[in-house]
Amino acid sequence: MPTLSVFMDVPLAHKLEGSLLKTYKQDDCPNKMFLAYRVCMTNEGHPWVSLVVQKTRLQISQDPSLDYEYLPTMGLKSFIQASLELLFGKHSQAIVENRVAGVHTVGDSGAFQLGVQFLRAWHKDARIVYIISSQKELHGLVFQDMGFTVCEYSIWDPKKLCVDPDILLNVVEQIPHGCVLVIGNIIDCKLTPSGWAKLVSMIKSKQIFPFFDIPCQGLYTGDLEEDTRILQYFVSQGFEFFCSQSLSKNFGIYDEGVGILVVVAVNNQQLLGVLSQLKGLAEALWLNPPNTGARIITSILCNPALLAEWKQSLKEVVENIMLTKEKVKEKLRLLGTPGSWGHITEQSGTHGYLGLNSQQVEYLVRKKHIYIPKNSQINFSCINANNINYITEGINEAVLLSEGSEICLPKEKKP
Amino acid sequence: MPTLSVFMDVPLAHKLEGSLLKTYKQDDCPNKMFLAYRVCMTNEGHPWVSLVVQKTRLQISQDPSLDYEYLPTMGLKSFIQASLELLFGKHSQAIVENRVAGVHTVGDSGAFQLGVQFLRAWHKDARIVYIISSQKELHGLVFQDMGFTVCEYSIWDPKKLCVDPDILLNVVEQIPHGCVLVIGNIIDCKLTPSGWAKLVSMIKSKQIFPFFDIPCQGLYTGDLEEDTRILQYFVSQGFEFFCSQSLSKNFGIYDEGVGILVVVAVNNQQLLGVLSQLKGLAEALWLNPPNTGARIITSILCNPALLAEWKQSLKEVVENIMLTKEKVKEKLRLLGTPGSWGHITEQSGTHGYLGLNSQQVEYLVRKKHIYIPKNSQINFSCINANNINYITEGINEAVLLSEGSEICLPKEKKP
Repeated sequence: MPTLSVFMDVPLAHKLEGSLLKTYKQDDCPNKMFLAYRVCMTNEGHPWVSLVVQKTRLQISQDPSLDYEYLPTMGLKSFIQASLELLFGKHSQAIVENRVAGVHTVGDSGAFQLGVQFLRAWHKDARIVYIISSQKELHGLVFQDMGFTVCEYSIWDPKKLCVDPDILLNVVEQIPHGCVLVIGNIIDCKLTPSGWAKLVSMIKSKQIFPFFDIPCQGLYTGDLEEDTRILQYFVSQGFEFFCSQSLSKNFGIYDEGVGILVVVAVNNQQLLGVLSQLKGLAEALWLNPPNTGARIITSILCNPALLAEWKQSLKEVVENIMLTKEKVKEKLRLLGTPGSWGHITEQSGTHGYLGLNSQQVEYLVRKKHIYIPKNSQINFSCINANNINYITEGINEAVLLSEGSEICLPKEKKP
Repeated sequence: MPTLSVFMDVPLAHKLEGSLLKTYKQDDCPNKMFLAYRVCMTNEGHPWVSLVVQKTRLQISQDPSLDYEYLPTMGLKSFIQASLELLFGKHSQAIVENRVAGVHTVGDSGAFQLGVQFLRAWHKDARIVYIISSQKELHGLVFQDMGFTVCEYSIWDPKKLCVDPDILLNVVEQIPHGCVLVIGNIIDCKLTPSGWAKLVSMIKSKQIFPFFDIPCQGLYTGDLEEDTRILQYFVSQGFEFFCSQSLSKNFGIYDEGVGILVVVAVNNQQLLGVLSQLKGLAEALWLNPPNTGARIITSILCNPALLAEWKQSLKEVVENIMLTKEKVKEKLRLLGTPGSWGHITEQSGTHGYLGLNSQQVEYLVRKKHIYIPKNSQINFSCINANNINYITEGINEAVLLSEGSEICLPKEKKP
């Protein structure tokens, strides 16, 4: 036995996120429900997978011509090409000018890890990052681990119960020259054209480096192009930037971590320099990215019939979520729940704020066993015909019982 | 257009490894062959995949009960459990005492990345790493990137044409107190029992932290237990250590990067501390490891019939490689090639040294278009019935033409 252990003084790490799910799992109540899954759920309460993905997965597993050799460090070329065209459009200026490329990464976390490592090494003036996001993200921790000062902002105004584009403009107005700006929910920013022009002009003049996050293209509006139109606007304005493109959620291949770190440079020569540095970093991180998810996605994106089928499935998912939001709003109206609930249907995407305060949230979790985050941002795809009545009645109770009062509910002992 | 570009001063990175494969790919000669693939090749010259893997892959893709939700950050529990039992045996002391665990990683590079990040954070006295390896590894670069001083040693003696266990003992004798020691080819060390006892005693007294690498259990001797017997010896001696366990190569799932960072601690309490810290690091690296490969492997390891089939396929691969080595030796004997070629059959595993000097290697590459690394360590599974004659005749020529002479071959202009 060694006399001194290397591990002896290693303490238990502080608990990070995920405790809501843990508490939910430990709850014995048969009515319990979890409304904060990261992934899109079906009406039956299972993680959604596009049907065309299952078909393609089966077809690939039966194809004797495929090999399972290591991918190159930069990843599957055809996958990156098809994904970039999906993001920017086939005729994108940046693609035509050969100044955009991607590195195939292990999900969006991998894309952020790689991008932040690059910025640490090559953008030494930037040590502050501003993160604009409506969802709690782990990306901030990645920046923090690498020595960045992280400032996080949400553009959701919990009092006005709406996304406030002025928050974004005000933040950018105040941030210092030369930092990094992560925009995590660009489709939700709701800026007017003149607002965008103002934003772009500030980012330019302050030489801010934008790092976009596109976690689920197509799952906001149901229209793939619409969901990234603003990104294309930045390209047309000649910007250089990074973008994390995740394709796990919009195909329903959650467990493969299919991501790309997209690099847009000012010209091809600069792009090549950046890519060569990123290659070295990716070699040390994972050497070869995983293939399965990328292979399935490429098969779909490169086959017009499968592509059409996938687009249709995205549309159906988004329509279904919109319908759920309408139903929730209508049920709350019929229950006579105090308050206006229009904000529910005004938000795009799978996730949206219920607009409840912390006591109301606590009531739902503790009394009704409906697990939702403190900011009341839930995944609306978790609501279905089986649970919608219980949930809306729970919200109604929570609002009635805590309306107008700031009194904390008495603490209940856990069974 | 921004006035100043962040990317402007980013230079092209220096080329890393892989240039041999690149040169090979650019070669137009129809007879060209590449004998340095990382993966095991079939007689038909394709990457080897265990047949039981293909069967299981198909079965999984047809299973409607599976979901494709994110794996936990620490990975697929059943996969880790089964893999640890494979590595240490079901009745291993460390497993029984609950002081061994694993983190599911993106391949062996991911396992090293994670392990080295931990050591940087929590083993601050260790800033020197000694790497004992017979194969050129990228792991050294990972340590280097994190600020470690890296010293690499090979235990292959190119003059005596054999593995020299004294090199290992001498290295460990000289290295300072408290460093990290990576042993990358433990099955090849060829130490006697008293040699092992001496090594263990030095590692203990110098408080050296061992980091083992098991890249392809079962592909050395064809016997899974035999290939990790020494690791079990370290466990029985009460050591704490890390081990990178890769399961990509021995199942033939190269493109999924199926790895585990194995942690052996002195007791369960220390293990939990280490795991909680590793979780935080893995969250920042990739958040969720990829599932496909782990799912296939778990299905096989947990099914006695499939497990037996897989073990049999490993045995066949190793027997086939041994047969190839025998044939190469015999053909060289029949050609009357000067020298004794017994060292070819004395080496275990897919890779082995031909024992050629640099001029002979250069002759093979430039004149015969047989691409092999400068140290003449080739992948013997790349040799098959179709190319063995060309290769052995090439070796014969190379040895005859450069035997006894240190004259450099005239440089030939590339077409």
